[in-house]
This record gives sequence, C-alpha cells and structure tokens, in this order.
Amino acid sequence: MISITLIIQCPDQKGIIAEVTQFIYSYKGNIIYIDQYVDRENKAFFMRLESEFKGDLKAIEQFQKAFANGPVTKYDMAWSIYPQEKKPRMALFVSKYDHCLYDLLGRFKSGELEVDIPFILSNHPDLQPIAVSFGIPYYHIPVTIDTKAQAEQKQLELLKQHHVSFIVLARYMQIVSPKLIDEYPNNIINIHHSFLPAFPGAKPYHSAFARGVKIIGVTSHYVTEELDAGPIIEQDIVHVSHTHNVSQLVAKGRDLEKIVLARAVKNHIAHKVMVYGNKTIVFS
Amino acid sequence: MISITLIIQCPDQKGIIAEVTQFIYSYKGNIIYIDQYVDRENKAFFMRLESEFKGDLKAIEQFQKAFANGPVTKYDMAWSIYPQEKKPRMALFVSKYDHCLYDLLGRFKSGELEVDIPFILSNHPDLQPIAVSFGIPYYHIPVTIDTKAQAEQKQLELLKQHHVSFIVLARYMQIVSPKLIDEYPNNIINIHHSFLPAFPGAKPYHSAFARGVKIIGVTSHYVTEELDAGPIIEQDIVHVSHTHNVSQLVAKGRDLEKIVLARAVKNHIAHKVMVYGNKTIVFS
Amino acid sequence: MISITLIIQCPDQKGIIAEVTQFIYSYKGNIIYIDQYVDRENKAFFMRLESEFKGDLKAIEQFQKAFANGPVTKYDMAWSIYPQEKKPRMALFVSKYDHCLYDLLGRFKSGELEVDIPFILSNHPDLQPIAVSFGIPYYHIPVTIDTKAQAEQKQLELLKQHHVSFIVLARYMQIVSPKLIDEYPNNIINIHHSFLPAFPGAKPYHSAFARGVKIIGVTSHYVTEELDAGPIIEQDIVHVSHTHNVSQLVAKGRDLEKIVLARAVKNHIAHKVMVYGNKTIVFS
Amino acid sequence: MISITLIIQCPDQKGIIAEVTQFIYSYKGNIIYIDQYVDRENKAFFMRLESEFKGDLKAIEQFQKAFANGPVTKYDMAWSIYPQEKKPRMALFVSKYDHCLYDLLGRFKSGELEVDIPFILSNHPDLQPIAVSFGIPYYHIPVTIDTKAQAEQKQLELLKQHHVSFIVLARYMQIVSPKLIDEYPNNIINIHHSFLPAFPGAKPYHSAFARGVKIIGVTSHYVTEELDAGPIIEQDIVHVSHTHNVSQLVAKGRDLEKIVLARAVKNHIAHKVMVYGNKTIVFS
Repeated sequence: MISITLIIQCPDQKGIIAEVTQFIYSYKGNIIYIDQYVDRENKAFFMRLESEFKGDLKAIEQFQKAFANGPVTKYDMAWSIYPQEKKPRMALFVSKYDHCLYDLLGRFKSGELEVDIPFILSNHPDLQPIAVSFGIPYYHIPVTIDTKAQAEQKQLELLKQHHVSFIVLARYMQIVSPKLIDEYPNNIINIHHSFLPAFPGAKPYHSAFARGVKIIGVTSHYVTEELDAGPIIEQDIVHVSHTHNVSQLVAKGRDLEKIVLARAVKNHIAHKVMVYGNKTIVFS
Repeated sequence: MISITLIIQCPDQKGIIAEVTQFIYSYKGNIIYIDQYVDRENKAFFMRLESEFKGDLKAIEQFQKAFANGPVTKYDMAWSIYPQEKKPRMALFVSKYDHCLYDLLGRFKSGELEVDIPFILSNHPDLQPIAVSFGIPYYHIPVTIDTKAQAEQKQLELLKQHHVSFIVLARYMQIVSPKLIDEYPNNIINIHHSFLPAFPGAKPYHSAFARGVKIIGVTSHYVTEELDAGPIIEQDIVHVSHTHNVSQLVAKGRDLEKIVLARAVKNHIAHKVMVYGNKTIVFS
Repeated sequence: MISITLIIQCPDQKGIIAEVTQFIYSYKGNIIYIDQYVDRENKAFFMRLESEFKGDLKAIEQFQKAFANGPVTKYDMAWSIYPQEKKPRMALFVSKYDHCLYDLLGRFKSGELEVDIPFILSNHPDLQPIAVSFGIPYYHIPVTIDTKAQAEQKQLELLKQHHVSFIVLARYMQIVSPKLIDEYPNNIINIHHSFLPAFPGAKPYHSAFARGVKIIGVTSHYVTEELDAGPIIEQDIVHVSHTHNVSQLVAKGRDLEKIVLARAVKNHIAHKVMVYGNKTIVFS
Repeated sequence: MISITLIIQCPDQKGIIAEVTQFIYSYKGNIIYIDQYVDRENKAFFMRLESEFKGDLKAIEQFQKAFANGPVTKYDMAWSIYPQEKKPRMALFVSKYDHCLYDLLGRFKSGELEVDIPFILSNHPDLQPIAVSFGIPYYHIPVTIDTKAQAEQKQLELLKQHHVSFIVLARYMQIVSPKLIDEYPNNIINIHHSFLPAFPGAKPYHSAFARGVKIIGVTSHYVTEELDAGPIIEQDIVHVSHTHNVSQLVAKGRDLEKIVLARAVKNHIAHKVMVYGNKTIVFS
C-alpha cells in the first residue's frame, strides 16, 4: 500500500473532477481526501487529492506516466505527485533569535513535522549549541558586504549537495539573494513580524508602537524578490494595549511568530499550499 | 440553468467520488464545489457538492430519479438534493431578549440569509413591534404549566400551515417539546449562552462568574431531547477578567450569541451541516 | 450620593496619586476605581478615577473649584470631571449601510449605552424608517460638491442646537469637514473597515482580497484631518481564506464593524479613552 | 534605588488608596504603577502597586516595619512586599512531554522570565538531556504506588533545600500530594489541557473529540486538593473542526498549553495574580 498526494492546477472546465477521480479509480486507487477550489472570475481550477494505491513506488510511476498522457494533456494541467513515504528535506536558516528554531526542532523531534532536516545554516555562530543538542549539522556562513556573493555561492552548494526541497527562514535576518529565490520558487518560507501589508521592512514592532495599534500580527509568506510582498500563507494576531512598550510587543510577537511559522511549514509539508498569482490557496 | 446542492452520507467504499462525479457529468452537470469527509474509524463517507445543470426543476427531477436508482442504491446512501432557487422557510422563536432577533432580521433584510421567514413566534408579546417594523407576522402563544400542551399544539399547527423547514430558537426561554423535536429532527437550532459542555442549563453566566473563568463562550447546537446536549454546530468565546460582573458577562455574551447563532443559521441554510451520531460535520 | 469620573493628564512627578487621592478623601469622596498609566519615556502621567461623594451636583462644583486651585495648579494638569448622572449626547451620522446603526440602537434601547441620542443625520433618506421605529429624529442633509459647504453649515447648527457631546460615524460615507473636526476634537468616532494602517481609504476589502491576506480587520479611531490616520481606539480581526470572495469579506467585515464600533463608543462614553499625541490610552 | 511590588488585600473602606499612597510618599517612594480592584458585593479591596525608593534593601525593611504598624493594622490588611531584585525561585516538575519544558526554558534563557530555576524534577528520566543542555540540575524521582510517600518526602526535601518559591507543573502527570499543596498554597501552577470546568480529569482531548466540540481550550490554574478545580489564572482556546482527529487535537493543544502556561507563570512571577476564594484577580 502506498499513499500519494496529487496537486493539480488548470483552466476550469466541465468534468475535471469526474475524469480525475475515474482515472484514479481505474488504477484501483482509493481516494481518501479531495479538496478543490474554482476561481470563477479567473476560470482557474485547483485540486488537492490524497489517494491510496496497492503496490509500491513503481506502481505510482506507472500511474504517473499514464496520468501525464491522459488527464494532464487533456486539461492542460500543472501538476505534481508526492508519495507520502518520501519526506521533503527542509533546511533551516537562522541568525541570532532562537525561539522559532527551538519551536520547529521541538516539533520535529516529537514527530509533528514529517521532514528530514539536513542542516541548519546561520550567518552567526550563536545557535550552534542548539543544533548540536538536536544532532543536526550547523553551517556558519557569515555574510558581509564583501563576502555576500561568496556566501550565496556556498549556500547554493550546500542546498544542492543536501538535496534540499525547501527552506525555512526562522528569523534569518539577511535578505535572500535573487539567485536562491530563483532556485526555490515558492519554496522559501519567511516569517515577518507584522501584519502585512502593514509595516513591511525592518523594525515593524517599533512602527506598530509608534502608530499606536491595538493589535500586532505576524505573517508567514513565500519569499519573492520584492521584500515582504510574497504570497501570504498564514497570519495571526494578538491584542495589545497602551501599557505595552516595544520590548513587550517583541515578547508577545515571539509567541505568535513561532506558531504562525510552524503552521505555515506544516501546511507546506502537507502540500496544502498552492500559489496562484501572488496569492495562496491553503487547503484545510 | 439551475443550481443544486447534493448531500450524501453512506458507508465508505472505494470509488464513490468517481461514480457520483461521473454520474453528474453524464447528466451534463458542472460541479462547482465538492467537499467530502471520511470518518476512517467508523468507515463513513460524507459529501456535499454543488452543481449546475442546464434546464429547470424538471431536469433536476429526472436526474434525481436516476440518481436514486443508480448511486444511491449501489452505495446505500442517505441523501438529499436542494435546488438553490427553493428557499428554506425559517421560523423564529423568541421570548423577551431582542438582540438575536434584531441581528437575524438585519441580515435577512440585507440579503445575507437566503430564506423566507413566514413568522416569528413568542411566549411573550414584547417583541411584536420589531416583527411589525420588519413586516413579518408575529404569533403570541403564552406557555404556562396548564397551557403547555395546548401551546405545543398551536405551534405545530402554525409550523405545518406555513410549511416551515427549520426553526431557530433566538433566545427562546422555554424547553421545546419532544413532539416538536420529533417533527424537526436536526432542524431546530438553539443558541446556548455557555461554552458547552461547561455550564449547561439555566444561568450559565452566573455559573461562569462563580467559577472564575477567564473566558466565556456560547454554543449553537441542534436541539435534542437531552437539554443542551445536542450536536454542536458552532462555538465561540470572548476573554473576560475579574473586573467583569455578571451583567457585564451577559452584555459581552450578547455580542457572541448573535454572531454565533447567525453563523450556525447560515451554515444550516447552505446545507453545510451534516449530523452524524451526536456530532456535526460542518463543511467550509 | 453622586458619582463622578475624574480624568487627569500631566507631566509625571512624584506624589501625584497620593495628593489626588488624599484631596478626594478630604472631601469625603470614596474612590471606587483608579487606573493610571505613566509614559516613562515621555514623562507623562495619566489617571482615570471614579469616586462617590455625598450630596449633589453642587457639592461636586465646590470640589471642582477647590481641585482646580489645588492639585491642578500644582501639577499643571489637563483635567475633566464628569458627573455620571449627566449623560453625554451622541449624534449618529449614517449613509446607506444599516448594520452599525441597528447595532448601536439595539444597545441603546437595551440600556447598554448610557447616552442621549438627540438625532440621526444622513446624506441619504434610506435609513429614516429605522430612526422612526426607534423614535429618534432623522435629518436628511444631502451632500454634493455644490452643496458641501451649506451641508456642513447645517450639520454644525444641528450639533450646536442639540448640545451634542460627540459624533459617531456609523459607516457615514462622506469625508467630515475640518471645521467639524475642529469643533469636536477627539470626539468624532469613525469605524474604518480595515486593519489600519493597512488599506486606508476607499474599498479596503477589495484591497485585502487583491493582496490575498488571511485576516481582515476593522479599526475604530478618532477622526483627524489626515484620512484614516487618527488615534486608534479599538481594532479586531477575523480569519478569512482563499474561498472568500470580496462580498463574503464584506459580510464578515460587517459583523466586526458593528462590534468594534460599539466597543469604542462604550469606552468613549465611559471616559476611558485618553488621547495622547496620535495614540490613545484605553483604560480597562 | 530599589523597586518593590506591594500587594494588599483587605476589607473595603474609604480612604485606603489615599492612606497607602500618602504613606509611600512620606517615605519618598515614587509610585510607578497602581492597580486596584474592589469587589463591591463582598466589600473586599485588592491592590497591586509598584514603587521606587532611594536606598537599598535596608531602606525597604524600615518602610516595611512602619507600614506593618501603620496602614496594615488600621485596615486589617493581608499584604506582601517583594523587592524586585530578589528573584523568585521556580521548580519545574515534568514527566515525558517536553513542549512546555522547552518553551519555559527558552523564555528563561532569553531573559523573559525573571526567576532562578534551581532544578527540574521528574518521575521519568526522559527529559534529563534537555535539563543538561540548559545547565539545570535534574532530579529523577520515580513515583509508584509503593514509593509514593517516599517520593513526596524527597520532593519536599529538595524544595526546602533549594528555597523554592513556587512550582510549575509543566505537564507533570502525577497528582500532587496534599502535603505539597499545603506547603505551597497558591504557589503550584498547573496546566490542564481543557477549557475548565469542561472535561476535568484524564484524557480531555478524547472527551472533547467525543462530544464534538468546535473549540478546544486549556486552563492554567493553582493546584488545590480538588482535582482541576483550583483558581483559574489563564485560559485560551483554538478552533477545531470535524476533520481533526484526537491526535490533531493533541497537537493543536500543545501550542496552547505552552503559551497559556507561560502567561500564567509570567503573571505569577510579577505578583499580578491574587487569589480570592476560589477565583483569581489578575492585574494587567
């Protein structure tokens, strides 16, 4: 028995669901879960489907070929199949803040995140002991104006060498290079410590304090070349009042950051996030 | 063009989705939305599906017959089809509190609720002016120990005479008779002013105050014979503190009650709530 | 017995609380509630205090004079005393949307809002029946480019004639004139249907939809000359997903708008909101 | 300069605030923050006050004596003074779950919790490596039916020897002995994984699942002899749906548990929690 997740995006037409489900049934697949969405304005169809098949990875490969020649061609689908036994490989980028790192590693250890973590990478040496205590390799690649190009090169090499599927910026305080973004489109997850589009850029808690907002938020999004403007995956907020100074906003924000980032990462791992234009569809 | 909502519940088996979607496609139906859930432990399958067909109600009747003889029989389905142009008929039962009534009528007037409201019924005369200002008939049926049986009889007659589909108890402060519950199984929606199963019965805000909780909640549920123990449709909460006395809890609760009741009613109208055992599946 | 609310704002110095509370005690006042806040960075002191005195309004006037000559002079206080038996007079400005109006009038009728409502004013005739059903005068003052100046003049006259204390813009879809703002500084409460500072200006739900946010919010704030940039009183949010189109965001937003506006109005009525720079202190 | 927190509880009478603030002023104390609450029904007065004094701990001792002979006697106060430079000593009790432990230790390390942590105690050896990685002693004291009395004795000895001020049960899966509760009244903080009073006792997520609730909650409370019935400090919730099985409820609950426990611990450390009957006053 093997389980797969099938992701489809195509122009909306009649009969897609019938065709796909029939096709799976004809391969003796058992559909466990189906979620679909039609953007009627843009006539676009999206589907995420979990199915069980008898047999092993080879059976899936056969199905995959047939599916490519059948429904994919007929409906002009962008699509992917992910066998559930192949865990995605997640690289963690960090700087000096440790709360998101601790949180993700705690979840990883407790079995909540179905990934491999080949390495943790940082522009600072500070968090190495945490990596060590969890038994995960830690690469310290400093980034200065002079070494930026070199550092990027090293990052890319590490990512390739370790067959990384996606990157999580767990409060990584450097702007990621366009080259990296090109290599990992919609596969670099950032946590921004404001309720975007309010307060993009640096020091959002300071800006929130200055504006006197009664709520602060955080946003997890895919990284695109425009800073803090990528497709939003997940957001959440916490209420604040005049009694909270900036450092209290920061402390309250930390609790949000780790939870919102974890939710985004979990949805990404489960292939529940589909990017469409600059927006996301997040299946439940 | 006619739109329908199809609701299915049956033992889980392979191929149900494929069969149903294929069947609809063969009748030239266009599936707009599909949501499904499998309770794997109990091997039960649930589906809600919206589809468009060419033609009118007659075309639907044909499809309906064929569907009954086809998939329904094959998979042993409990099922319903609701043409979207047939609005459900909602009766409102109230007592003296007006906040839920105002809220529902405001939504009704603004077009948010796709229903007809044949009448408002109350055991008190107080809210009649509101009914009048919205142009809806108001029946005052007092309930005392002596007149309870008679009152129930009158209620049942009114409900039948007006072809009522479902009843909303918008803070109706009487226990509904078993006869009524039998006539409208999973079609009487109540709003209970506590976070069930905490604080069932009378005066939940007083009990919440006495216990010193930091959160109060409300629960919308279908009415069953056991008091406040029916399937939960929707819940929400609000934070409170030691500074709030009982009457402030009541005031805060009112805001919750109307919104949670309205959400439950909207989901019920859209046939998004399926009852299963004493629990609900609420499709999104 | 008479109850007052005392509001104080002054440069922070040692001994203010001791002096004020001692002063009240010397007039046989019984302090029921005290809330205070020190902005240590700006060395500013804020206090809200509720106290009971024997006697009537005259006794308060005496205390008021003595207080002005005593602590007020000594500590250079900006201050106000509000006897609780004198209800503030609230004017409601509306356009065509009725949800905030219904909500506020429902609360008013149930005794939740301790105000008088001398009139409802609108640039459209549509909501007059609601005003009538609650027995409140309704003034229809159309606003066009040509009549804007005249309309403002009429508004000001009405406000003066009715001794209005503060104005609530319950989804009033016109920009309020600077003259009105000057006459009612920090006394015009608006509800903006976005989580400010995100999406100021017109059609925020459309902007939120376009950006693909996962949360929408609303903001109640005092009106200042800069559009949607005044001191924030209250904010709240609701989660949304890719399945919600603009009109569903609007419907979800309505529920927030009425509740957040009501909260802001209640805090304003209770003199719990103090404006400081472009921010507010909202005592609990 | 030395800062103190003063906590007072006494029968409500006129003039208490005036007297206390005047008294502090006469000792050249500068009040930074005052929060007070009057339970009018029970005529009880509660106050928390932060003040700065010139000098050192000796100056505070003098003030303390004078205060005891003055206002304390006059108003029959239960009271405490906590110099802010004396950190409370927090013992952590754990079993096998590590999420609350990681969370608290992460906050401790980042400076968010102003405490000393003399030791971590567990009835299992599993979490020792975490203690080691944070450099905190770990005592493994197994508890079986036969060794329960002995284990309690050892626990008490450790607590005394390390001058522990309060205990946090960070998912400690044993019932705490009455002797321990007697030694640390209102100083043992538990996190219960339900929205109390719903689902007390074991396996609340299973009960919540069985009841079909749409919200799960967690509760942090002081431990009293009656199980899960002590004064509630903090509660929070998360929405769930029919799609979540028990293990998903557990995973969602973990995120709540750590945050709600941390909030309760932070409020306890800041002496913001006052117990009154079986309820708490939690100053903001």
